[in-house]
Parts: sequence; C-alpha cells; structure tokens
Amino acid sequence: MPRQALAFRVPMRHPGDVSEIAALFEAAALRPEEVVAILGKTEGNGCVNDFTRAYAVSALAGLLGARLGTTAEAVMARVALVMSGGTEGGLSPHFLVLAVREVAAPATGALAIGVGFTPDFAPEEIGRMAQLRTTAAAVRAAMADAGITDAREVHYVQVKCPLITSAKVADAAARGRDVATSDTYASMGLSRGAAALGVGLALGELDEATLSDAAIGEDWALHSGRASCSAGVELERCEVIVLGNSPAWAGDLIIGHDVMADALDFGAVQRALASVGLGAPGQLAPAALARLVAVLAKAEPASTGSIRGLRHIMNDDSDINATRHARALVGGVIAAAVGRTDLFVSGGAEHQGPDGGGPVAVIARK
Amino acid sequence: MPRQALAFRVPMRHPGDVSEIAALFEAAALRPEEVVAILGKTEGNGCVNDFTRAYAVSALAGLLGARLGTTAEAVMARVALVMSGGTEGGLSPHFLVLAVREVAAPATGALAIGVGFTPDFAPEEIGRMAQLRTTAAAVRAAMADAGITDAREVHYVQVKCPLITSAKVADAAARGRDVATSDTYASMGLSRGAAALGVGLALGELDEATLSDAAIGEDWALHSGRASCSAGVELERCEVIVLGNSPAWAGDLIIGHDVMADALDFGAVQRALASVGLGAPGQLAPAALARLVAVLAKAEPASTGSIRGLRHIMNDDSDINATRHARALVGGVIAAAVGRTDLFVSGGAEHQGPDGGGPVAVIARK
Amino acid sequence: MPRQALAFRVPMRHPGDVSEIAALFEAAALRPEEVVAILGKTEGNGCVNDFTRAYAVSALAGLLGARLGTTAEAVMARVALVMSGGTEGGLSPHFLVLAVREVAAPATGALAIGVGFTPDFAPEEIGRMAQLRTTAAAVRAAMADAGITDAREVHYVQVKCPLITSAKVADAAARGRDVATSDTYASMGLSRGAAALGVGLALGELDEATLSDAAIGEDWALHSGRASCSAGVELERCEVIVLGNSPAWAGDLIIGHDVMADALDFGAVQRALASVGLGAPGQLAPAALARLVAVLAKAEPASTGSIRGLRHIMNDDSDINATRHARALVGGVIAAAVGRTDLFVSGGAEHQGPDGGGPVAVIARK
Amino acid sequence: MPRQALAFRVPMRHPGDVSEIAALFEAAALRPEEVVAILGKTEGNGCVNDFTRAYAVSALAGLLGARLGTTAEAVMARVALVMSGGTEGGLSPHFLVLAVREVAAPATGALAIGVGFTPDFAPEEIGRMAQLRTTAAAVRAAMADAGITDAREVHYVQVKCPLITSAKVADAAARGRDVATSDTYASMGLSRGAAALGVGLALGELDEATLSDAAIGEDWALHSGRASCSAGVELERCEVIVLGNSPAWAGDLIIGHDVMADALDFGAVQRALASVGLGAPGQLAPAALARLVAVLAKAEPASTGSIRGLRHIMNDDSDINATRHARALVGGVIAAAVGRTDLFVSGGAEHQGPDGGGPVAVIARK
Repeated sequence: MPRQALAFRVPMRHPGDVSEIAALFEAAALRPEEVVAILGKTEGNGCVNDFTRAYAVSALAGLLGARLGTTAEAVMARVALVMSGGTEGGLSPHFLVLAVREVAAPATGALAIGVGFTPDFAPEEIGRMAQLRTTAAAVRAAMADAGITDAREVHYVQVKCPLITSAKVADAAARGRDVATSDTYASMGLSRGAAALGVGLALGELDEATLSDAAIGEDWALHSGRASCSAGVELERCEVIVLGNSPAWAGDLIIGHDVMADALDFGAVQRALASVGLGAPGQLAPAALARLVAVLAKAEPASTGSIRGLRHIMNDDSDINATRHARALVGGVIAAAVGRTDLFVSGGAEHQGPDGGGPVAVIARK
Repeated sequence: MPRQALAFRVPMRHPGDVSEIAALFEAAALRPEEVVAILGKTEGNGCVNDFTRAYAVSALAGLLGARLGTTAEAVMARVALVMSGGTEGGLSPHFLVLAVREVAAPATGALAIGVGFTPDFAPEEIGRMAQLRTTAAAVRAAMADAGITDAREVHYVQVKCPLITSAKVADAAARGRDVATSDTYASMGLSRGAAALGVGLALGELDEATLSDAAIGEDWALHSGRASCSAGVELERCEVIVLGNSPAWAGDLIIGHDVMADALDFGAVQRALASVGLGAPGQLAPAALARLVAVLAKAEPASTGSIRGLRHIMNDDSDINATRHARALVGGVIAAAVGRTDLFVSGGAEHQGPDGGGPVAVIARK
Repeated sequence: MPRQALAFRVPMRHPGDVSEIAALFEAAALRPEEVVAILGKTEGNGCVNDFTRAYAVSALAGLLGARLGTTAEAVMARVALVMSGGTEGGLSPHFLVLAVREVAAPATGALAIGVGFTPDFAPEEIGRMAQLRTTAAAVRAAMADAGITDAREVHYVQVKCPLITSAKVADAAARGRDVATSDTYASMGLSRGAAALGVGLALGELDEATLSDAAIGEDWALHSGRASCSAGVELERCEVIVLGNSPAWAGDLIIGHDVMADALDFGAVQRALASVGLGAPGQLAPAALARLVAVLAKAEPASTGSIRGLRHIMNDDSDINATRHARALVGGVIAAAVGRTDLFVSGGAEHQGPDGGGPVAVIARK
Repeated sequence: MPRQALAFRVPMRHPGDVSEIAALFEAAALRPEEVVAILGKTEGNGCVNDFTRAYAVSALAGLLGARLGTTAEAVMARVALVMSGGTEGGLSPHFLVLAVREVAAPATGALAIGVGFTPDFAPEEIGRMAQLRTTAAAVRAAMADAGITDAREVHYVQVKCPLITSAKVADAAARGRDVATSDTYASMGLSRGAAALGVGLALGELDEATLSDAAIGEDWALHSGRASCSAGVELERCEVIVLGNSPAWAGDLIIGHDVMADALDFGAVQRALASVGLGAPGQLAPAALARLVAVLAKAEPASTGSIRGLRHIMNDDSDINATRHARALVGGVIAAAVGRTDLFVSGGAEHQGPDGGGPVAVIARK
C-alpha cells in the first residue's frame, strides 16, 4: 500500500497548549501512531533562556505518551519534536504536525516524508567533518526511507542536532581529545552549521572537496538552500526529516522551495509559492490561501550590518536579540506574500542559505 | 514665482549624526532656510524612555541653529522636527528632510507642502473636542498655505501635538477645571487621537456630528486615513504639515496614499505605490525603486489580539512593547513591496486608520 | 500527636527541573503526602507572558501526581503551588517546599502551617468587598487549622487568588452584573489587593469600617504587613496558607517578620532576622546563615517615582518592566543582609505593605 | 597656594539635562574652568546601543563650551566626561562633577585629584602590553600631578580608553600589523582590561613579570582593586584620573576604598565606608549620610554562573544583558549600606577586582 503524508497546522493558546492536536485525535483526523514529527513555533525569545520550547516538548510528549501508552522518553526517541522559539512581529504560535499513513488509494505523486538518524556523536565530532559526513549519510537514508531517488525532489530537510556541553568538553579532555569549541552557545551554531553542510553534501548542492573543519562556521559562501537545523541539549545524535515529492506517495500535498537571497527577497517567496501552484502577482487570494498548508523559512540578520546598502540595527541592539529582529522582518515579508501569520520562521541559519537570507519551503494542496 | 517641494532621504549612523544633512548644505543641494520639516526614524524603543528622539532633535536644532545663526529654540519654533523612535525588524534609521523653494520654473502640478499651527492649548482642551476642532482649523490653514483647495488632494498630514503633564493637571485643578486624563502616558494617546480626528474632520473624512469627547480614544471606527500624529512634551500647540498635490507647484515630486485595513494589507501598499506611478505585480524593480522618495505609514497592534483570525502575541509580551512588534511587522510588509528598509513607519496610531491598520503614503518622482 | 512543620529550600536548574524535590522523596527526608504547599521562584519575566510559572507547576504536578498515584488536577486541588516569576539581579531560582508531619515528639512551640479556602467566586465578587470578606474568613479558618489563636503569632499569609477573564466578564454581563474591571491584567491587581486587605482584616491590622470597594486598588495607606498574594488564571477561589508560630507544634523552625517601609529599608530586614534569633550588625555570619531556612518578601516600585527623594527610572523603562527592577533592588538589599540569593522576592504588592515597601518574613531554625 | 578638590553630586531629569550643573555655575558654587572631570550615570542600557551616554556628553560639552567660550571638541580635550549607562534596580541617574580650585586656606590633607594622558595608540597596541605599560606611565604622571607619592594613598583610578574599530583593523592590516582582536565589542573589554592592569602595575598591586599579552582578558586572578575603566570610540589615547588623599591638599573631602570579593560582599562596602569615618553596624544614619559625597563601584556577573554556590541567571538571560543584572544587584547591596541610590555603579569590570566582585570607593566629608 502506498503511503500518504499528512500535515496539520494548528494554533496553540500558550506553549503548553496541545489541545488542538488532541482534538485531531478525538476527531479521528489523525492517529497518534501516525505522527512522525511535530514542528512548533512558540512564543519565547528563541534564545538561551527560552523555556517555551521545553515546555511545549513536555506537553507534546505527555500527550503522545498518554495516547500511545508509553513514556515521554520513548515518544521523543520516535517522534521528532522540533520547537522554534520566537513569534516576533506578527508571527502566530502554532504547531505543524507531520504524519504518515498507509492508504489504499493509488500513488499519485505527492509529498513524501522520510526519517533518518545518525549514531550518537562523540564530543570531538560535533561541529566538524565527522558530524557533517554522518549527517549526509542520514539524509541519504531518510531519502531512501521516503522513496526519493532524485535529490532535486527534496525541498526541505529538518535536522535536530546535539551541542557541546561542559560535561562533554571534560569527557573529551579526559580522553585526550579536543573539541571544536568549549563555548556551549557557540557549539550550537557549529553543530547547526555542520549539519546544514551535511545536508548540502547529501543533496549535491556542495562539493565535498570544498568542505573542511575550518570552513564550518566561517565560509558562509558554502550553504544548503534546503536545510533547516536546530540544536538541542536533549539528544546526542542528528535526527533528520526529509520532505520532498515522490511518485510513490498518495495524497494531495506537494512541496516546493526557493532561496531568499536576503531578507527582502519577496521574489523568492513568490517563486516558492508558484512552484506548488500558488503563483500570484501580489498577495495570495482566498482560494489560493485555502490550499496553503505550511511555509517554513530560516531568518538571520545580515552579518554586514546592512540590507541592500541600508544600515540595520539588529546586531547592535542590546535590548532585543538580533535573531528576534530577523524573524520579525522575514515573517513580515512572507506574510505580505501569503496573507497569514502562522509561518514557521526560525533563526540560527548558519550555512542554511546565504548570509542574511535563507531557504523558504511551501507545502500546499494540489 | 511658483514653489517647489524638495524631499531628501538621508541615513544616520546614530541618533546624533546629522552629517548627511550637513552634506546636503555643503553640496548646495539645499539651503538651511528652505527646510520646513525634518522627519526622523531613530533607533530607540519608541516608548517612554526613548531618548534617541530628543538626542536627534538636539543635534538637528544645533545644526540648523549654527547654519541660520539662531538659537535651537528659534529653530524649533520654525521647523517641525518629528522624530519617531523604533527601527525594529529591518527598518533603517534615517531622516526625511522636507523643504520649500521658490523657483523660476513653471508650475507643473506637484507635491505641495503647507504648514499650520494652532494656538497653545489649555490643559483641559487636550484630548477633547477643543483640540480636535482647533486642529481641524490648522489643517485648513495648512492646506491654504499649500494652495490646496480640494481636500482629496491631501494625502498625508503630520501633526505634532502636546500632552498633559503633572504640572498641567495641577494648573487645571487650580483653576477649577478637569482634564481628559491625569495619566501622562494616556494623554499622549488622547492628544494624538483628537488631532487625528481633527485631520479627518478638516479633510471631510468624518462628520462633525459623529465626534464627541467620549468618542476620542474609544470609538475606533472613527478615523482618518491620512493623519499621522505624534505627541511631544516640548510644545503646547499643534503643528501641522500637510502634504498633497497642487497644480500651483513646480517640480517632479508627487504623493499618493492608501489605507491598510490590517497589518498584512499588502494590496493597500501596492495601491498607494500605483497611485504615484509605481504599480508592480511584486516588488518594485530597480527603475521604479529609483523613483521612490519616501514611504510614510502608521502601525499598531490589532486590539483584538489576532490578525485575520490568528493570534498575535504583541499585547501579551512583557519583554518587547507591542508597538515595537507592530512596527517590525508593518515594516516587513512594506519592505516586501518596495525592496528597501528606510521607511517612516511609526506607532501610536489612535484614530489614524482602522484598528490594527493605518495610512500609508508614498512620495515619488514622476 | 503534635504536628511538625517542615521546610525545604532546593535549587532548580531550569523551570521544569523538580529533580531536587524528587531527591528529597528518594532520601525519605519527606513524603509526598506531607507536602501542603510549594513556593517557587522561576526565571521568567514575572509578567504577562511568563510561562516558566506554568511550566514549573506542570512539572511539580506531574511529579506529585506520579508519586501519589493521582492526576495533576487532584494534586493542584490539594497542594498550593505558588510560582513567582522573576529572578532579576542575583536572585537564584529555587523551590521552597512546605510540609506537615505528625510526630511523636512533644510540642515545643514552633512554626505552624494552616490552610484555608474560600468558595469559588462569582466574577462580580472579584476585586471587591465580597472577595475581601470571604478571604478574611478563609484566613481565620487557616489560623484555626494551624491552631493559632493570637493573630500576632501569624507572620506570613500566602494567598493564591483568581482573576477576571474575558469569559467571566461576559458571564457577568449575561446575568446583568458588572465586574470590578473588564481589563484582565488590571483584575489581577484588584484581586491581589482585595485578598491582601482580607488578610489585614482577619489579622486585625485593618478596621473593617475603613474598607470599601472604592478603597481597593486606590487607597494605598491601607495595607497588610503580612500578606503575600498572587493571582492565577487556574483557580476560581482563594487558597490561603498561614505561617505562624504555635505552642502546639513541634520541631525547631520558627518564623518572624517585619515591614520594609521602602525598598532600602535594611533595618526592617535586620529586625525580621533578629526576631528569629538571627540578629547581626552586618551580614549574617556562616553559623547564623546555616540556621536560615527562607526569606519571603514583596517588592514594588514606589509609585512616586523616587526613593528617599532620588528619582528611580523603574516606571519609565519600556525595556524592563518596573516590577523586574523592584525585585532586583529588594533582592540586593536582602541579600546584603543574609549573604545568599535564593530569596522568595515577589512582585505585585498591592496593599501588601506600604507604597514602595513590603513585608519581609524569615523562617529559621532555632 | 594649595589646591582643593571639589565634588558635586547632582541629579539629572533625563540624559540631556545638565541644568543642575548650570545651577552650580549660576550659584557660584563652581566655576566652569575648575571642572576637571564629570562622571555620569545615565539611564540607558549600558550596552552597545546606549545613546544616553553620547547624548549626555553632547549636552555637557555644549554647556561647558558655552560657558568657557570654546568648542565642544576643546572641552572634551580638557575635561574627562565619563558616562556609565545603566540605572537598573533602584540606581538614580546623576552626575558627579570633580573640580580643582586653588585656595588661600592651609593644606590640611585631603582628597587630591590628578590627571594624566597617554599618547594616541596605534591599533596594534590596544589591548596589549603596549597599552598596559603606557597607561601605567600615565597613572604615575597623574599621581605626580596630584602630588601623591605613596601609591597606597591612591583609592580610585578612572581610565577612559580607546577601542579597535573596523577602520583601525584595516589600517593595521595595511601596515602589516595584526590587532588583539578584530571584534569591535571584544576590543572594548581588552582595552579596559589592559588599562586596569596598567593601573595595577603603577600602583604596585601587580608584578610586571606576571603580565603579558596572553594574560589580558584571560587571567582574571590578575586585577587591580582600584581601577575603573571604560572604553569609548571618541578617543585614541587613555585619559587617567587619579583620586587619592594628599597632605598637600586643602578642604574637607577624603577618599577610601575596599574590594568586594563578590557581589554580596557587604562587609567590603562597610569597610570602605569606615575607612572614611562612616563606620556603622547597619545602614548609615542621617548624620553620617549627610557626610557621604559619592560611592563609585564596579559590577560584573560572576563568570562561574553562581554566587556563593547558588545559580544566578545573568549570563543566560537573552532579554536583559548580564551587566544590567549585575549593576542592579551591586546597586542594591551598596544602597543597603548607605541608604541612597545615586551611586556610580558601572559594568565592564575586566581585571577591575576579582571575578564577580570589584572595587568600591567612597568620597566623604571629614
């Protein structure tokens, strides 16, 4: 039987509110065991002390655990729970539930979801070629899981990756190994960056000969146009979710993407929309909007300090973190195109799109 | 000799940096005595303790005073210096210098600038019909000054208005009068609101019979689509700048406007652009962008707590003021249309456009 | 058998970390069924969008529910979980677990804990005399529960109280009743204020003839020197915890208090310490510090805008909420006296101590 | 004729308000030409985008320039204007004006003020031994200027130092030199640190053999207990103000200091007060307070993440900068001792006191 990918976008009233997902289960729109990933946009600051992410994960794991009769730990081992903090500007807190169902219907060619995992990493592998290459292998495994053979049919790759904690630094030192950085916060960026370059390698966007430990976190010209990576303290491996289109899948969902060259790249957003049949001269009309299921994008402040030659103040603002400004801006630009605000715009875009820009993917009904 | 309106948009490196305006004087592009108003977007928080506005005013008054051989006080009595704090998202700090020059060239029909003033207000008049009606009269005077007889040719009215301080509350009490509010911060909103309704009355947008003390700050259905008001502690009167088009003026500038129904009203932005010849299906192309001189807009969080049915968190965020989120969002939506970030997007939009929306005006070269 | 009050102060690594309380259970220092209340100081902003409180409550209810074999709802009905957000300055996130145990030891006179509850309130009762009087009755019931007959032996009364939501406003309107305020945020202050005045009435600090609906939230001269109130959306009644000294209780704990006249009232802190045998000319010496179990205090910015004649900027800061500055300051002043930072300093002190000041209570080992 | 040091502490209503200093001139309490330095505590965030410092400097230079009949630039070349942003907790915005007057009265032994300057630094010297050694020489020159021969009589050394801008990085590169860091923000810390170690070297607190380029910004065990350094973009040299006691000076002012071992070191504050005759068991009584002229202290978050073993959240807070928490805390601890809030507590304490602690100096009338 072919598989069908399901995607549900539901609001949350606060970071611990999973009632709308429970309602999907109640209404039999979705079965708990079909869920493979939940992406969430929570209303924290998206930075170090953003506990809305962990709170939402706790609530989601509690809900799924109760429904599946298992522990929160077992839920998290099986379902990727990827929370992105920060709903600046007009962004609206919401969950995007991704699920896979075997259906009797014929394969029509549709959205395909594949999952892959790396082994646990040693501390000294994180943020380096070891993580990069292993992540690339996991991406290829996820593509195989999704039944996608042509890398061009992959449009969005979500990676959850580990970081380097103080304990891991000590562990490496005890074994006579050094780590990429002993700064925990910096390690998050290196881990995201290595993962993103791994995606780019697996998808053929990047030539392995150009990649090196030194390039990770340094050479921003190297990037994937389809990677979206987030680092978390709760895992030791990389978890990979590949979203693409496959002739072997059923259903009416389709995915496309483009790359924003900078934060104002409205044309890229329009092209991504057009790639899934939602072309429009201005903002989406209601009929088109009704077919839009999700927009997923990365946002980062341009490191140059300016956008198209005009100074931005994101990097100099000690009251509001730069990534918060960036999400607000990119959220506004995408909302201008689609006319809604429950968009998965996340920060921390190292090697995920060009400096100051980033990938933008769209899931729609045909 | 006909008059010609001049408009220069220049960046600032910090709130005290007026070097680019000085450079206009050095280059003889502009003479100090021609300046009638300077609008500035400064990089503070735009709220109570935003001292970037006063710092910029101090620097501007110092520059103009030195060039004109007069005091800062005399400069401020003659030139409207309107600073709007807050460059959230990608907004870029900049000044917009408005000037008037008598020219030998024939009148071609072009941007016209008129200025008007009310008398000083008694404390008990602020935020009430007395301020509203007197402001309407000043708007009519400014229209006459600009040589505009048809109110439909007015596209943007900037008002600087006073607020109620503790000293004014005491003064009113000593005379046995009550004031609209004894809360200084609330009085800023009431003063902006009364001024905006005065603009609406003068422009024929509103029927005087619908206006009352009680409606000010309460009945948001009443609003002007062309008013932009800011309150300041440094003045006791309203200062009015009318921008419109007049057949009696020379030059190649033109102004148009539209009203954003909500923060995502990309269509209104496109219509405002099209009204000055900058119609485009998506973002402005370079040739069109080169003709764009300024965009002026108001932004406010929707009081309903949602945008097109989706929850926004602006009003519940105790870390970032709601108006900051709103400016970031509207800045992103407008930047999506025009492709640049030095936009005059200001907050505090009581009775200036509908709840959650606001006026957007565009100045362009023909 | 006499009762013994237990108090454990334990750190948390993040708002969802209840491992130190679990460790108390593991070590048999405490049994889950003995717990009557847990106060927590969590590292959120302490304002509207502080989700660290709900996250901690969720984790605590999960822990206790699992240990007691009951639901989170049942836990919350029986144990008061009072989270105060905000660890500004140097305040350290921690829990204070209060428990009651029947012991074979003789009554020696010691810390006594009593609990009381009001019935659920109708919306129109909240923030008014109805809530005030019923809370006073619940305080008397809690005193009886604690076996305290002399109100002078009560040193700290924690109240959790409800607030007025939009749904409650509608409910009241449907029944033809008006509410004290339809502003949800303002209702939290009124509810805290009514509860605090109810404490003052029960303890004989206030004369009922001076109390009225109009005085609540207005007449700051009326206040209790022993009340600490917090409002939460999760309950419809008031929950009261009385802490005092009673000859009928066993154990080595004792409580005392004083009232800080303003945020700098170091003398009041020293007197509160001295009242439980921790008198010291400067900061507590290690031996005295070892006997200190908990300090509980309220903090509020002086509404006058100054402290002892010198301007403070708390009320004008649009980046950091005024209550955050106040907690940081009072936390610093108390930490100066005791030499540690895990202090329960909470904001929202309406009618809880004088304007700009507040109660400070100390629990110590004899 | 002996010299007399004068010190005036005056409030400011906003960062541009120098009216209380003007009032000193009007009242003939002080002559403009006597002013040698003005320290200011302004109500900004004390971080990158704190424009309250530049605004205050602009206002001060304007005032002094007008009174002295010279330019702002000339004022700044002669008078050290040292603004420290951040009045968190209860700290009160104020200026401390330091002046020197020749008097007919006999030398009694009193507060002495000396000034010294380094030459302008090459970019590659900043944050390195070159800056350190030259600053030490300037401190010795300032001591000589003050007539202080015994380094133990120096109690506070304020240094303004330069930073490394992008332009300076480029300049050094063009000459084939490298710089200590190409990160502008980081260079501020290195420059402050090198200056502080220079003070320590000059005062004999540190042994030159222990100092090196590598130790600057790394080895926090090395520090001065009397240095207070701030970096600014507006100067290329170090400006040094030495405050100590000298038998050759007249007047009734005296200075002392101590070093806070951590942020809770109340004992150090009490010792510093006692060293100038203001010993007290608790908070200063009114008569003692009347003799207190100024308290100057440095504050920094402990890099360990804890204070006396209890976790602080300063370094993990992405909403409020760590230095803001630290100033609030240290401000509270010192205010507990003295009973007032117009204290010069500044951040950025690299090598100025031990990790998490800092120097505290007190000026009082005998």
